Amino acid sequence: MKKSSGTKPLIVGLAGFGTVGGGLARLIEENAELTSLRAGRDIVIKRVLVRDARKVRQTPLPENAELTTDPAVLTDDPQIDVLAELIGGVDHARSLIDRALDQGKHIVTANKALLAEEGLALFKKADRKKRVLRYEAAVAGAIPIVQTLKESLTGNRVISLLGILNGTSNYILSEMTSNGLDFNVALRQAQKLGYAEADPTLDIDGHDAAHKLILLIRLAYGVNYPYTALPVRGIRGLSTLDIRLAGEFGYRIKLIGQVREVPGANGRMSLEAGVFPVLVCKEFLLGRVSGVYNAVQIEGSAAGSLFFHGRGAGDLPTAGAVLSDLVGVARDERADSTGFARQDLPGATILPQEKGSSSFYARLSVKDRPGVLRDMAGSMAVEGVSVAQMIQKSGEGSSVPLVFMTHETTTRAMNDSLKRIADSGLLTEPAVCYRVLL
Amino acid sequence: MKKSSGTKPLIVGLAGFGTVGGGLARLIEENAELTSLRAGRDIVIKRVLVRDARKVRQTPLPENAELTTDPAVLTDDPQIDVLAELIGGVDHARSLIDRALDQGKHIVTANKALLAEEGLALFKKADRKKRVLRYEAAVAGAIPIVQTLKESLTGNRVISLLGILNGTSNYILSEMTSNGLDFNVALRQAQKLGYAEADPTLDIDGHDAAHKLILLIRLAYGVNYPYTALPVRGIRGLSTLDIRLAGEFGYRIKLIGQVREVPGANGRMSLEAGVFPVLVCKEFLLGRVSGVYNAVQIEGSAAGSLFFHGRGAGDLPTAGAVLSDLVGVARDERADSTGFARQDLPGATILPQEKGSSSFYARLSVKDRPGVLRDMAGSMAVEGVSVAQMIQKSGEGSSVPLVFMTHETTTRAMNDSLKRIADSGLLTEPAVCYRVLL
Repeated sequence: MKKSSGTKPLIVGLAGFGTVGGGLARLIEENAELTSLRAGRDIVIKRVLVRDARKVRQTPLPENAELTTDPAVLTDDPQIDVLAELIGGVDHARSLIDRALDQGKHIVTANKALLAEEGLALFKKADRKKRVLRYEAAVAGAIPIVQTLKESLTGNRVISLLGILNGTSNYILSEMTSNGLDFNVALRQAQKLGYAEADPTLDIDGHDAAHKLILLIRLAYGVNYPYTALPVRGIRGLSTLDIRLAGEFGYRIKLIGQVREVPGANGRMSLEAGVFPVLVCKEFLLGRVSGVYNAVQIEGSAAGSLFFHGRGAGDLPTAGAVLSDLVGVARDERADSTGFARQDLPGATILPQEKGSSSFYARLSVKDRPGVLRDMAGSMAVEGVSVAQMIQKSGEGSSVPLVFMTHETTTRAMNDSLKRIADSGLLTEPAVCYRVLL
Repeated sequence: MKKSSGTKPLIVGLAGFGTVGGGLARLIEENAELTSLRAGRDIVIKRVLVRDARKVRQTPLPENAELTTDPAVLTDDPQIDVLAELIGGVDHARSLIDRALDQGKHIVTANKALLAEEGLALFKKADRKKRVLRYEAAVAGAIPIVQTLKESLTGNRVISLLGILNGTSNYILSEMTSNGLDFNVALRQAQKLGYAEADPTLDIDGHDAAHKLILLIRLAYGVNYPYTALPVRGIRGLSTLDIRLAGEFGYRIKLIGQVREVPGANGRMSLEAGVFPVLVCKEFLLGRVSGVYNAVQIEGSAAGSLFFHGRGAGDLPTAGAVLSDLVGVARDERADSTGFARQDLPGATILPQEKGSSSFYARLSVKDRPGVLRDMAGSMAVEGVSVAQMIQKSGEGSSVPLVFMTHETTTRAMNDSLKRIADSGLLTEPAVCYRVLL
């Protein structure tokens, strides 16, 4: 590796040597000259922390780096300037970062779960210790959305933010849409290609997208939205029938993480946020995001509409984001993890979920008999839900699907009308209902 | 305006109080509380420099700000921390910034022409004086592409960058495409709507896009590409016939600024760069950018493909970018204008234009007689240009249009085959030729 003359290199302790950790080691090696031009000093990995030192690895250990299985050997090495935490999970990673901060290290991490659930305590601690904590790789992979919210959009109020934040879910939905695969077939295909874990719960049940959304809300609004308060619905069991019907209306179904400002109680702005499958117009840029790609669309008070699109995961896209954070540390930037001057963020003012409003898609499987359409539409009208479009399909046996697209209405009104319809006893299976992005 | 307790505000001297300057004053007023949360201190405009103090203005002067027509009153005010230069043009703006740097001010500017043609001297001076010089608003309006290249993509080599960087040209092309307007009609419409200047030369002849591309090349590669060495071709006089024919092949014509790394002489990487109308596949995100929007697509060595889309101009989108730079100054970031550690950038290694390669679209108006198609195709084959698709249209009178899409070939081979065709004497008007983005 070529050395810059004079300036002391930035010494990295790398925790985790899997896909992303191995990718980072390769990038640091390949980009050595460019990195040194960018940062004004070299970046060197000194120690690599792994669970099993004897495991055979694809990527060779960085030149002159030492392997260890003892966290303290890494965190307590006085030569190490920064911990790159790429082990994932919550408990083990937290204690590692905690100890590294105690030892005066800067932190670069890709750990969305840890930061979403317990990040604020770490941000405050980093602030107290005057250490930098960076996490560009934790949200939307290669898309520089953390930096964008922290630095570039500070001239804006964020009116709304919509994201396709989970590549696995988007891949499954894309395959279901383009190739008509059933959910379970598409999931198994994603697993075979390495896009989904053996246990896909975090991805397909929306938790991973929810973790990322919590981080984005913090960056956009400077408030703490408790992870446990976020409404989350994933794509498990989503039906190809609904994807086809949505297509007939001109929409694609996407797993969306969304937050927007709405007028709340006492004239204060509340946040309406959640993760759910949403019908997105095919012609929107957001409707054209396919495969494992991620995207974020922001409506800024000054900027207007901004759209970002890129790879949401993978060894090099993620490692590239980690490396940019290390370059940031090497440049010795100030320690503002949230992009706000104070790290003890106030609690978010949260709009109760049922008060939130949207257009909705509802598919009702009903007994095929005269007057059933009138009864369904009547149940909606009673609750103040107004129908914008309707399709009636010929059904199988004695059941027919009625598909409604509503005008904008509250979640409560929609839920109440669906309950009223269920109570009518006319449904042959439970109603399917998704939000629509107009 | 609400004041943060304790910390001294950032005092701004604003030069220029037109569309963007007025927008900035409004944003600073409206976002006062948020800005102070973001920056940890208030941002206050103290003086506003204008040419004509008696001119009636839409936006009221910021509270407590004083109007002046004397540059020195602004630059030499010891209370002012930062000059926001929004007057545009080259000579006057340069001497203003020069003097402000001499007086120890930080600089925020949106002046792409100045930075492209003479920016490096200003960057070096700012570096020497340890002052920050920021210019997010100078490229692609609200899209944070300067910050992205300077900070977020430092873990990548930039393999290529493609941008729709001039909203006026994109608006004209969109109108020509969607509504079949002639170039001159679309231009007049853009002028009426305020999207184009009375003298549209900078926009439609590609110079504005070229200025922005020079800044992006500097940020992406850390080299100085002389503005005068950049091949530039605008959209003046582009024909609706070519837009329609391109549409039949599945393409839209866009004014693209492009730079990419290609292997050059002595094994060194050369840069191939330029601004020109290009055929872009309709299905690409870049092909779907319409109206006054801008977009940038980057291929990073680690990130893969990244795409950014947003408003390229306008009072608030541009002012929002200026304000984010002021917040950056208020946060007291380090003075690296290029995103590289040294500001005296080396010269770019430039690929000679004729060695660059692309697919091409060529429309040949030829005399309608037997064997003419064979003769045209033969002239291309002799120069090694291979045809991928061809359309022959019925013509008017004795002339027919032949439209070729070639496989990838060098600009020299394409030019040589067009010269050979012209020499054949079969053309009834000059050939029309554009690059194709595959």
